[in-house]
Amino acid sequence: MDELTLYIANKNYSSWSFRPWIAMTAAGVPFREELIPFGPGATHPRFLELSPTGRVPVLHHGTVRVWESLAIIEYVAEVYPDAGLWPADRESRSLARSISMEMLSGFRALRGACPMNLRRPIKAIELPGGVTADVARIETIWRDMLHRSGGPFLFGAFSAADAMFAPVVNRFSAYDLVCDAETIAYMDAMRTHPAWRAWEEAALAEPWIVPEDEA
Amino acid sequence: MDELTLYIANKNYSSWSFRPWIAMTAAGVPFREELIPFGPGATHPRFLELSPTGRVPVLHHGTVRVWESLAIIEYVAEVYPDAGLWPADRESRSLARSISMEMLSGFRALRGACPMNLRRPIKAIELPGGVTADVARIETIWRDMLHRSGGPFLFGAFSAADAMFAPVVNRFSAYDLVCDAETIAYMDAMRTHPAWRAWEEAALAEPWIVPEDEA
Repeated sequence: MDELTLYIANKNYSSWSFRPWIAMTAAGVPFREELIPFGPGATHPRFLELSPTGRVPVLHHGTVRVWESLAIIEYVAEVYPDAGLWPADRESRSLARSISMEMLSGFRALRGACPMNLRRPIKAIELPGGVTADVARIETIWRDMLHRSGGPFLFGAFSAADAMFAPVVNRFSAYDLVCDAETIAYMDAMRTHPAWRAWEEAALAEPWIVPEDEA
Repeated sequence: MDELTLYIANKNYSSWSFRPWIAMTAAGVPFREELIPFGPGATHPRFLELSPTGRVPVLHHGTVRVWESLAIIEYVAEVYPDAGLWPADRESRSLARSISMEMLSGFRALRGACPMNLRRPIKAIELPGGVTADVARIETIWRDMLHRSGGPFLFGAFSAADAMFAPVVNRFSAYDLVCDAETIAYMDAMRTHPAWRAWEEAALAEPWIVPEDEA
């Protein structure tokens, strides 16, 4: 079988890269990664060669090109159906997709105000309108899924849905946005997962600073 | 088998409702629809009863609740695997998901400036920044997929990907945004599809006006 190659950007900042990387790593899917740091311009020329959108992440598999974080996860779940990327039962899987797509399409206020930044010291900022509602809805999603599954992850074992919310776990922590005990327990489960730790260790070792992501 | 019930809002305006409705209708999937018109307030109380997000569309299937337009389509594709909602070959399917998720997560400038409105007379408006780039990227997506498949739809036969772009077909037309012959031919294929015509006919018969969607 052709090797899967996942092209990503800075581990410290690239929330979109983090999602498929942690999904594939946690699921034990073999892949090669190639990191291309964000350049000073708007779009890195390499990104334009690698992906029709000029953005990462993008997955190459032979001649196949897959872009968008969740589409990459869906593709890998098809290539490795036994890796458990999605929950096994249909109802859980449909919930996992509903909340993953809610994440993919929404929560713009939170994502705009609080960029993912793994090395950022914990510090609150003044929050623009909409962030509080985004945080509340995400906490409701997590609580509903954790009560249903029993935890420690949204559907029991780590799944694609956790991967889609991984960058939010960092945002909640870095900008000191939450204090609910259940929320904190879920975030702790995420941040002690070996795949999270491997990504974080690499992020902290990166030398690059992206000023517009330093909120 | 329990009946599928798709809850939607105004056919004239609700772009998110249009996507799963046209996907399911074009695929011949049996379902019951229930339309709840947008109220004057921000969120209709019925929407809050029906969906954890307080938004439509939402699909009910026995005790299962599925929200987000594309998650609904994925669920229906699992319940009716032979309905052809996604292209049959894996590479086409991965492209269909990539572009569907690009649509789900992006093109905010176009979607903000040019609300779907089926009864709107064709008329150009002054376009805010970003709309032209959104239009260009969507035309590139369509051209790439149509050249690859041979048309008339993005992957040959009508699929979930066409459903995800259906509201854009109306936006391009209503706000007079495109003139490329290939783009127009694709839009004509979409607008003469029986499922499109059925939705449009119902939209044009609706009495409700939503002022904020009248750009």
